[in-house]
Amino acid sequence: MSDKLATQIEKIVRKAAGIEHGPVVLHEPFFNGNERQYVTDCIDTNWVSTVGKYVNLFEQLLSRVTGVKHCIATVNGTAALHICMILAGVQRDDEVLTQALTFVAAPNAISYCGAIPHFVDISPVSLGVCPDRLREYLQRIGEIREDSLFNRQTGRRIRSLLIMHTFGHPSHLDELKQICDEYKLILVEDAAEAIGSEYGRKHVGQHGLLSTLSFNGNKILTTGGGGAILTNDDEIARQARHLTTTGKVTHQWEYYHDCVAYNYRMPNLNAALGCAQLEKLSEVLTKKRLLASRYNSEFSKVDEITFFTEMPGVKSNYWLNAIILKKVSREQRNSLLDKLNDGGIMVRPAWNLSNTLPMYKSCPSDDLSVSLGIEESLINVPSSPSF
Amino acid sequence: MSDKLATQIEKIVRKAAGIEHGPVVLHEPFFNGNERQYVTDCIDTNWVSTVGKYVNLFEQLLSRVTGVKHCIATVNGTAALHICMILAGVQRDDEVLTQALTFVAAPNAISYCGAIPHFVDISPVSLGVCPDRLREYLQRIGEIREDSLFNRQTGRRIRSLLIMHTFGHPSHLDELKQICDEYKLILVEDAAEAIGSEYGRKHVGQHGLLSTLSFNGNKILTTGGGGAILTNDDEIARQARHLTTTGKVTHQWEYYHDCVAYNYRMPNLNAALGCAQLEKLSEVLTKKRLLASRYNSEFSKVDEITFFTEMPGVKSNYWLNAIILKKVSREQRNSLLDKLNDGGIMVRPAWNLSNTLPMYKSCPSDDLSVSLGIEESLINVPSSPSF
Repeated sequence: MSDKLATQIEKIVRKAAGIEHGPVVLHEPFFNGNERQYVTDCIDTNWVSTVGKYVNLFEQLLSRVTGVKHCIATVNGTAALHICMILAGVQRDDEVLTQALTFVAAPNAISYCGAIPHFVDISPVSLGVCPDRLREYLQRIGEIREDSLFNRQTGRRIRSLLIMHTFGHPSHLDELKQICDEYKLILVEDAAEAIGSEYGRKHVGQHGLLSTLSFNGNKILTTGGGGAILTNDDEIARQARHLTTTGKVTHQWEYYHDCVAYNYRMPNLNAALGCAQLEKLSEVLTKKRLLASRYNSEFSKVDEITFFTEMPGVKSNYWLNAIILKKVSREQRNSLLDKLNDGGIMVRPAWNLSNTLPMYKSCPSDDLSVSLGIEESLINVPSSPSF
Repeated sequence: MSDKLATQIEKIVRKAAGIEHGPVVLHEPFFNGNERQYVTDCIDTNWVSTVGKYVNLFEQLLSRVTGVKHCIATVNGTAALHICMILAGVQRDDEVLTQALTFVAAPNAISYCGAIPHFVDISPVSLGVCPDRLREYLQRIGEIREDSLFNRQTGRRIRSLLIMHTFGHPSHLDELKQICDEYKLILVEDAAEAIGSEYGRKHVGQHGLLSTLSFNGNKILTTGGGGAILTNDDEIARQARHLTTTGKVTHQWEYYHDCVAYNYRMPNLNAALGCAQLEKLSEVLTKKRLLASRYNSEFSKVDEITFFTEMPGVKSNYWLNAIILKKVSREQRNSLLDKLNDGGIMVRPAWNLSNTLPMYKSCPSDDLSVSLGIEESLINVPSSPSF
């Protein structure tokens, strides 16, 4: 069965990508603008490091694109998540609710604060945290004391809900924000994969007190390595800037630092690449959605496959297009992944669920049956904007 | 007095730098090789992120230059220090001995592990940790139990000695290594400022179990932002590589991570810049030492100033040239710093001693009178390799 399916998938991918022979990569950067010019300009002007016009410009352009007041550029999305957790007030021995179907950076950022990831299930419609399931779960295990939410089972404070817009698909933001307000949780949006994605005609990243973006090489826009912290709160933005620049107090010549802080600022060289990339964002988003619609019409003809589409009321950037295999065992899926990759069609499953990784095995968790079902049956197919 | 001295210093700096009018910056990058070509090549080939030929090449070139078997490129020197602390076995509530006269990244890296910096004094000859003072101090406060060193006063384990080669001047490596061996301490060398510096005709970074480099924009070589971990130990190198690349277990398509790890790998774009920079290292080092010798001969004519020179048996890269003001109060020094900077001669003091920063105020500490004396009287003068 998987031989025939592999052939079908290969045919659809090659047609959608317009690549008849040779390898089709999962997602590669798309450089057709001012990338060379801006990067060379950094070298010509000697401004390559963590101070320079492109870092500031990149932050301004990000604000314009996302509609979020403050954007702070960082070395990568993981660094951005770490700072968000700190500024959400996450402390040692706190718990942070998060989805198990996520990139490992999310639980890692929680654990950098000495806190404990607490895994909740996702919605099969958004692939993000399921608001109905979350509410039901919090009713069961949560208790509000001293204006904070506590886990009745562990006795620990639950400080924050860290959600992700999986593969660029916006989560149920209104409902999740409502739950956070009721349960005294700080909402943080991991929008690493979701630049250009909209919820109710607004760019994602506005419901959370803090949100993050990523500009890793596999993302829609890249800065080589890079990320950003987004927030509409002036004071939190000031703190984010301070914490990402070693906590140095501005002074003409003195080296005085007033807190334990981080060396997380994006270098100018990387921001230069990002500025050129941002200039092409709408072109890239159009290409991405066209590719998704080509995939959708072709995969809908295959009985064994559902092409994952955005839910009503949102607009996804379709970062990584995803298909769900119906009635296929994990072994069959693995065999499909082997065959396609061996044949030059780069495909991947979702991430292994975080609660199955050795370092997070003993973390608290709700029932994760939807996450598990998705993890076993979802495959990402090649999605480069250059197709 | 400070007016006359400021004028004298300005005259010497302008002559040494060959800049008659306009600003003279402290240290700017020097791009006269293949920087543009290699960086553009990353864009042309679509390899800008954390995988690519320049990252591997940069690591190989670093190994060749330093003589250290394994070099692992990181996003910056702070990230490198953090991983070194982890791999030195530093754990929560351990103490790590380190100099108070250092960039804040060193105590920060210690505290990222939940450990406590423990400050010791420096030698006025090296500006690094003083071996005689350290030995005397450990005899007084240290106690070896269960093959580990403990602080008799706090009861905490002292795990490591983190030294720095201040402004590129090698520390007393043989003596410090000897003390570490006797007292069961893991030696880590912060060589952030010391690429090209030698101790006994060997590049620094070989005495420590682990060492670090930095390629920030103000360093002798730059990658925009960047750093490296150096070690001759195969297993530690493997762990460093694993910990800096999110702990992902290599697999064709699976996303399995086996430990809490970090997103610390240097992007290819930055490494490309570094490769071009490394090709010019010996030229830059020659220029740096020539500048230092011009400064030395001019400053030796000024009664109120001692030009800081390398100690016998070592070769400094003279990253930041330093002068020591004799019999000048802190107020007079500050006034001198104001005057020179206002006049376009960018000068700076050493870092504020770490034990005076609010977050490290209550950390254990030996008497730090030498550090304090240096901190009050040292000024770094412009040192760009382009002079």
